Amino acid sequence: MRTNIATQKVHFTPIDKTVEVPHGSLITDAANLAGIDINVPCGGQGRCGRCAVVVQSGNVRRRSTMRLSAADIAAGYALACQTVVEGDLEVFVPPQEEITRHLTTEKTAAKVSVPFDYDWRTHQSIVKYFLEIEPPTIADNTDDLSRVQRELARSGVCESPEHAHNLQIALPVLRTLARTLRDAEWRVTVVIDRAGAHPRLVDVLPGDQSLTLYGAAVDIGTTTVTVYLVDLFSGEVVETAADYNGQIKRGEDVISRIVFASKGAGLVELQSLVAGTINKLVERCARRRNIEPSDIFKMTLVGNSTMIHILLGLPPEQIRLTPYITTINHPPSVLANELNLNICPQAPVDCLPGVASYMGGDITAGVLSSGTNDTDAVTLFLDIGTNGEMVLGTREWLVSCACSAGPAFEGAGVQHGMRATTGAIEEVWINHATYEPTVRVIGGGTQRARGVCGSGLISLIAEMFITGVTDKAGNINLTLPTPRVRQGEHGGEYVIAWASESDTGKDIVITKPDIDNLLRAKAAIYAGYVVLAQSVGMTMADVEQMLIGGSFGQYLNIEKAVEIGLLPDLDWERFKFLGNTAARGAYMALLRRDAREAVADIAKKMTYVELAADNQFNDQFMAALFLPHTDMTQFPSVVRVLAGENAEG
Amino acid sequence: MRTNIATQKVHFTPIDKTVEVPHGSLITDAANLAGIDINVPCGGQGRCGRCAVVVQSGNVRRRSTMRLSAADIAAGYALACQTVVEGDLEVFVPPQEEITRHLTTEKTAAKVSVPFDYDWRTHQSIVKYFLEIEPPTIADNTDDLSRVQRELARSGVCESPEHAHNLQIALPVLRTLARTLRDAEWRVTVVIDRAGAHPRLVDVLPGDQSLTLYGAAVDIGTTTVTVYLVDLFSGEVVETAADYNGQIKRGEDVISRIVFASKGAGLVELQSLVAGTINKLVERCARRRNIEPSDIFKMTLVGNSTMIHILLGLPPEQIRLTPYITTINHPPSVLANELNLNICPQAPVDCLPGVASYMGGDITAGVLSSGTNDTDAVTLFLDIGTNGEMVLGTREWLVSCACSAGPAFEGAGVQHGMRATTGAIEEVWINHATYEPTVRVIGGGTQRARGVCGSGLISLIAEMFITGVTDKAGNINLTLPTPRVRQGEHGGEYVIAWASESDTGKDIVITKPDIDNLLRAKAAIYAGYVVLAQSVGMTMADVEQMLIGGSFGQYLNIEKAVEIGLLPDLDWERFKFLGNTAARGAYMALLRRDAREAVADIAKKMTYVELAADNQFNDQFMAALFLPHTDMTQFPSVVRVLAGENAEG
Repeated sequence: MRTNIATQKVHFTPIDKTVEVPHGSLITDAANLAGIDINVPCGGQGRCGRCAVVVQSGNVRRRSTMRLSAADIAAGYALACQTVVEGDLEVFVPPQEEITRHLTTEKTAAKVSVPFDYDWRTHQSIVKYFLEIEPPTIADNTDDLSRVQRELARSGVCESPEHAHNLQIALPVLRTLARTLRDAEWRVTVVIDRAGAHPRLVDVLPGDQSLTLYGAAVDIGTTTVTVYLVDLFSGEVVETAADYNGQIKRGEDVISRIVFASKGAGLVELQSLVAGTINKLVERCARRRNIEPSDIFKMTLVGNSTMIHILLGLPPEQIRLTPYITTINHPPSVLANELNLNICPQAPVDCLPGVASYMGGDITAGVLSSGTNDTDAVTLFLDIGTNGEMVLGTREWLVSCACSAGPAFEGAGVQHGMRATTGAIEEVWINHATYEPTVRVIGGGTQRARGVCGSGLISLIAEMFITGVTDKAGNINLTLPTPRVRQGEHGGEYVIAWASESDTGKDIVITKPDIDNLLRAKAAIYAGYVVLAQSVGMTMADVEQMLIGGSFGQYLNIEKAVEIGLLPDLDWERFKFLGNTAARGAYMALLRRDAREAVADIAKKMTYVELAADNQFNDQFMAALFLPHTDMTQFPSVVRVLAGENAEG
Repeated sequence: MRTNIATQKVHFTPIDKTVEVPHGSLITDAANLAGIDINVPCGGQGRCGRCAVVVQSGNVRRRSTMRLSAADIAAGYALACQTVVEGDLEVFVPPQEEITRHLTTEKTAAKVSVPFDYDWRTHQSIVKYFLEIEPPTIADNTDDLSRVQRELARSGVCESPEHAHNLQIALPVLRTLARTLRDAEWRVTVVIDRAGAHPRLVDVLPGDQSLTLYGAAVDIGTTTVTVYLVDLFSGEVVETAADYNGQIKRGEDVISRIVFASKGAGLVELQSLVAGTINKLVERCARRRNIEPSDIFKMTLVGNSTMIHILLGLPPEQIRLTPYITTINHPPSVLANELNLNICPQAPVDCLPGVASYMGGDITAGVLSSGTNDTDAVTLFLDIGTNGEMVLGTREWLVSCACSAGPAFEGAGVQHGMRATTGAIEEVWINHATYEPTVRVIGGGTQRARGVCGSGLISLIAEMFITGVTDKAGNINLTLPTPRVRQGEHGGEYVIAWASESDTGKDIVITKPDIDNLLRAKAAIYAGYVVLAQSVGMTMADVEQMLIGGSFGQYLNIEKAVEIGLLPDLDWERFKFLGNTAARGAYMALLRRDAREAVADIAKKMTYVELAADNQFNDQFMAALFLPHTDMTQFPSVVRVLAGENAEG
């Protein structure tokens, strides 16, 4: 193929159009020539990452890779506005509305992959075997259960007659045994739980049903419940489903749930609501997989201590009263029917252990699935939801704390805050010359904004700060030459969307009290990092990697979270977004007995720092109540961005 | 004191009257002189034992000790009609209606005494301890359960922290733990079950309740349920109660219960009926002891396999269908609340193991409590109820079988048969000259007869045979010169009570079909002995002792039972009546863990001979269908009695 030195051919897919541009052009120039509309909300500064395309072949030079991870670059991602054409190119342009989502997804929701060496025979506590049992005669008149035990020993399912002899069996299974054995003509499939001191007979099914075996991993979030339906033979997650926790109608946050549970039959109602949500999701997964919920023989659950107490029917009130004591951190394995969970009634239901009232099994599971407990690198693991729980450690040690961040990042306590659903502004860019915002609204297309969700708030405050709409203290600069800033009922405010553009017919604004709420929330979390590091004689600079879990983490923009001081100012390469680490930890513990033991070890090993009792915490909190922090030396990249802004502005 | 050679003073108590009689007089003569009315239904032949008195001091010569055991004699008992005055005497005359009862009681209902070396610390699986637990602080914020476990380890209740750490706890106990600990200001009493692989927390009670600890031993008979309330610290039976099994209204015998259980909600109803009976009896014992049923923390039950299946809610139908297979012979320990037993809800409920459909935990318990498994003497253990279950063995070996005797000895299948309640004729003596009967009726005094119970039937048939009212085959001799024998609707019959003497206004009779039924019942049992002995190459003569359990055994008259061939013809000293051996076995297993293990060993070790599959059984049964047996050489004492009768007659 002959190439022209002066020009390069750029072939864009999927629209299949080729243009020629001078060597050294930007991809955005080539796209313009090809008639492709690539969004550049930040005005081509390489800051927003919205113009990312995939260079599938050919030479390019990336002037900036801000917003891209090493993995993104390796996959060919390039910011169109920052990428110079230095050869003939094949360029794929992702659908515009999906770009950011796709990047975020790639970077955050680590695919739920099967642990590479999973072998159910070795690792799985629940097993299933088909048995052909000798029918009784007058001469061989052993009782039904002994016949099953004898065959378990004979066939080698149980390693010895003693092992088979110790088989545990509950009355409900015994009550149907005689009928099942005879109806099935002594050809049955047994489901056995090997988790305890003795094997336990979970179910006896007619005929050969030994080809499938299912379990479920469940993450009970205060807001969202997630269910993974897992094929316990292959180890694969075959279906997932998620929905709001049915308890939401009885209180948005943990504290209001505890209060509700403490009154009258409140606890029973909340238990029934969350069991109902789990049942609905399990039913949904089962239907899609074309199985029955009763085909599920094991469930592993994670949740914060309050969610687990309520699920188990344990009164949670002491969790919110000093000195914040749970009834139990390591719940015993119970049976599905004890909790009204509609899987196999005798299936084991295992709630993973936590450490304290505000350090639940969702976090120990997250430590496991994030690998925080299995690395030599000093690792900070963070799960932000209503609270910010964090763990610092290596394979040798683990310290943890929980910050009462409050639900600001879930949109609560903010005038136009909302959860991340349709109509929520999830990302904001402010033009540094005009102070006009560009927003992205969940739902896309013609969806009008109804409010601002957590990631939108972080984005908004970062942009306001970087562009000078607010100062370090979060005060809005009312002298700017734009109608977007104005004096409101509660002090200065910034208009994100005018009434004419909004879905509510009212201006969508952010006020000084809103900003103060968000500053308190992020300050609590940052102070948590520092206190935790100090507790082991470290500083934030010693953190070698930062792992972020939780659904909120999935949509968190590192750059902007650093700019407001919510995340520490580390090299971006040190951040990893791991998605729902709690659910993944439950999934791992569901699959592997050693993983289950590892979670127990983590819970046992992890030191919990009670911030309410920590002298340092308040000082650190006060110091963090600024954008990004009182001590700017902790945020050198933000200093650089501000310098750049000021130079341009 | 001066004594007259020719006469002796006899002082009778309790009436406090002294008479002088010639040396060599009978005590009956002295009593007559003193105006004391001593019953002699057998006419002074020394056969009925009804004239027993207690010689408290002085020399006597007993001409006959029939009806008295060595123990009776050692205690001073003497038959007034057979005892010669050879010195001045102190003679106690028991109240007349109580004599036989008292003798029977002494000979049969072995007192329920505490195993001599019982120490709850060592032997008891359920223990109770008072704990003073450290209240939590911010600095010591371990969860509630861990605080309990820590104190269990610290105080030495659990032998190690690991042991305490493995403490099992069920949700219902966990659910009240936080409240109980705080309401009781961290001073609580824990109840722990040490029976399993790991200790289990049964209950947590406020304050110090460690001074009492109760359990219950329960015998579920097809007819009668017996409850022993036991102080688990001292080991004493502090209350007992018994009543009819509430299931009786749904069928008198095991087979009709199984049939009822197999239809619709029959099983649920029968379970509820027997649980209701147990609850009523427990409540009765508790009320008398001034405790609550919930103060009972352990229950050990025995019953035949059908009773236990029904109690556990296990369908019993296979028990009556060939090849007679139970669902389970060694039931797992369950919790009181699983069976709706109203003791402490989490109390362990332990049904002792059986061997086969017709060899239940009542018999293995009986083997234990009778000591059949712990002797070098070849022992035949018999429990007669609806069925006759028997065990032959020594400490080395045990063989067993069950004979379908049918409920004849419970009064069923006999025209005027009835259970041993008020109005039942329980003993009969027939005058060998006049063929007039003397009867004893339960209720005594002026109570009129309503029918004949099991012991009465045995007594009646033995008397009819010995006096020649029937022949060996049970045919009634209609030629005798008495209106008592006559041709009835179904052949010959004998009138035990005329309509004018009976409570029903009708003649109370025994017919040839009645006698045939009873012969079949006793023949089945005798054939069982022989087959069992043959199975180990023995004959009845090898039996060194015969132990008889069961409530029916309590009222069994050895002499008469031998005369009809229901019991083998052994020296009377070889018989021991042990009363409710099943309940006593449950009581022993309730108290001592080693006794509980011994029952399991017995059940494991005992060979069960299925008579339905035994070639010898039918021959032996046919040979035993006579009074006392075809082969009279097996009944030498009966031969002697008949010779005596004939000589006199």
